[in-house]
Amino acid sequence: MNFQNDIILRTVKGEKIERYPVWLMRQAGRILPEYRKVRSSLSGFKELVETPEFAAEVTIQPVEILEVDAAILFSDILVVPEAMGLSYQMLEKTGPWFEKKIRSFDDLTFANANIDINDRLGYVFDTIKLVQKNLNKRVPLIGFSGAPWTIFCYMVEGSGSKTFSESRKLLYTQPDLAHELLSRITKVTIQYLKGQIKAGVDMLQVFDSWAGILGKEQYSTFSLPYLKLIADEIEEVPLTLFCKGAYSSIEQIAQLNCNTIGLDWNMDIQEVRNIVGESRTIQGNLDPCVLYAENKMIENETKKMLDSFKSRRHIVNLGHGVYPDTNPEKVKTFIKTVKEYEIKS
Amino acid sequence: MNFQNDIILRTVKGEKIERYPVWLMRQAGRILPEYRKVRSSLSGFKELVETPEFAAEVTIQPVEILEVDAAILFSDILVVPEAMGLSYQMLEKTGPWFEKKIRSFDDLTFANANIDINDRLGYVFDTIKLVQKNLNKRVPLIGFSGAPWTIFCYMVEGSGSKTFSESRKLLYTQPDLAHELLSRITKVTIQYLKGQIKAGVDMLQVFDSWAGILGKEQYSTFSLPYLKLIADEIEEVPLTLFCKGAYSSIEQIAQLNCNTIGLDWNMDIQEVRNIVGESRTIQGNLDPCVLYAENKMIENETKKMLDSFKSRRHIVNLGHGVYPDTNPEKVKTFIKTVKEYEIKS
Repeated sequence: MNFQNDIILRTVKGEKIERYPVWLMRQAGRILPEYRKVRSSLSGFKELVETPEFAAEVTIQPVEILEVDAAILFSDILVVPEAMGLSYQMLEKTGPWFEKKIRSFDDLTFANANIDINDRLGYVFDTIKLVQKNLNKRVPLIGFSGAPWTIFCYMVEGSGSKTFSESRKLLYTQPDLAHELLSRITKVTIQYLKGQIKAGVDMLQVFDSWAGILGKEQYSTFSLPYLKLIADEIEEVPLTLFCKGAYSSIEQIAQLNCNTIGLDWNMDIQEVRNIVGESRTIQGNLDPCVLYAENKMIENETKKMLDSFKSRRHIVNLGHGVYPDTNPEKVKTFIKTVKEYEIKS
Repeated sequence: MNFQNDIILRTVKGEKIERYPVWLMRQAGRILPEYRKVRSSLSGFKELVETPEFAAEVTIQPVEILEVDAAILFSDILVVPEAMGLSYQMLEKTGPWFEKKIRSFDDLTFANANIDINDRLGYVFDTIKLVQKNLNKRVPLIGFSGAPWTIFCYMVEGSGSKTFSESRKLLYTQPDLAHELLSRITKVTIQYLKGQIKAGVDMLQVFDSWAGILGKEQYSTFSLPYLKLIADEIEEVPLTLFCKGAYSSIEQIAQLNCNTIGLDWNMDIQEVRNIVGESRTIQGNLDPCVLYAENKMIENETKKMLDSFKSRRHIVNLGHGVYPDTNPEKVKTFIKTVKEYEIKS
């Protein structure tokens, strides 16, 4: 591969590592003043997502400023529903908002799976190519998408929600419509991830951010089968599945064709390791709120997490995206603590 | 006791029952047209909460209209912070909002634990007395409060939130302040629950609605010790603890001095029963979204849940409060299905 730093790829494969690799979900974003400078020169969040030059710049910023062991593409999971015909706005403070919502078979005209992925999402692939050119093999680049269930939540609800009760309602009232929409999202997502691979990403992560609002049985009916379809299609690069809150389904997730399982901060590392065994890498899971604390506490909490690993197959991350008002200096303390930690042999 | 219907009390004690008892969290509220009629004649939610005549009326409505096996006091967990000096508004659509927030020791002037509980919350006790008079022993009355951790979340955040990151931040940045505030809330909550017992409630439930946002260790530091203080003080009536999302702490919750453990819809009934054993009653946990479905599916999903019980120590409920746009006829289908279900001996 010839990366200057390939420690995350070696960890994914279970190879010998000298220290644990570390990156942060949402590292490319609002925490960095350098990001805010780029963002404020533009008309809005979407211009940043859709302009390869700027999206590539903020993708690389954390590699240079925070010295993380991987870059992650700056983009949004909602580019997929938009590509299918359901456009969104990103409202300051309240978050994503869709004018149309999918509530009936008729609404599926706004959920088109027969699209030319290069035509609709070519700007993402261009960003990836530009990142790889400028990153120049310093660290690997992670691409991503939302899981079909999570994308479904937004397409049905039309916005963020605490309970996504409209989305969950549809599973009981119109299961055929739910499966049709999930199938369409899956089809586009597979094309999208393959496009990212072709454009040059080195790893992929699928975010099932709303896994935790489904019970075990519903998760196995409406999310896992679609994750399986995706996982079985991704062969060229390592795949991470991050199913936030899916406490009851870790065993099933570990049976999918993925390399790494992401954990949120409420999941117990040792319990999950016992379920998963040594055949997968585990990623996570410091509470993002730890980064609000004094340096000494950040060091202690980080070391406590590292002590709990008892295996080399771990990628260090937070258990959720870094919160926007986190001081980048605290992030550096976290990263430094990880990098200086000596793995017990 | 001489209740016309005491099946819920017998279930709590593990006595022999002829069928499972059933009630719904938030049964007294927006789903009933009869409630909306009372509510629309008043200036707002708080007038309804604070006027015993009206609060008592809507408390009893579901007993008469839905034929549930228990009444639950119509009130709000936020009357406790208000009694301590932090008043709130209930905004249409966005929910609770506090003008002041607790972020420093100075702010604790708005979190006074040395209050005359009868002076501040006498209206709740008056409601309880009026309910008991008008309910006239048809079914038991359940009183309630929020858990200290959940009340803390609102007092620090100042509103609802998806992540309550300000509240969680305080646990790392100012743990002494956090424990002081939690202690104060606990002291007032114990007085408040004892006041409810004195006024005549037959059972109590403590809602830890935001349990799920803490990891296992933090939950055992910042929530469980305060729940224990409360549980150890409540001796006169049966106590239910509903710690939503506390998947990793069920074993610890089962060690507290409570009679019943409430489960959300993501918790697996058999797994929890295996952990808890037969020494506690379990309450829950149908997904509230099932009540959006056709009657046949409601019957099937309800029976599937009942089949999973394999024990008599179960109180049937939803895994969360009934959603406001639920059709009361669907609630009746759910209740009828439970009442007609034959317990296998």
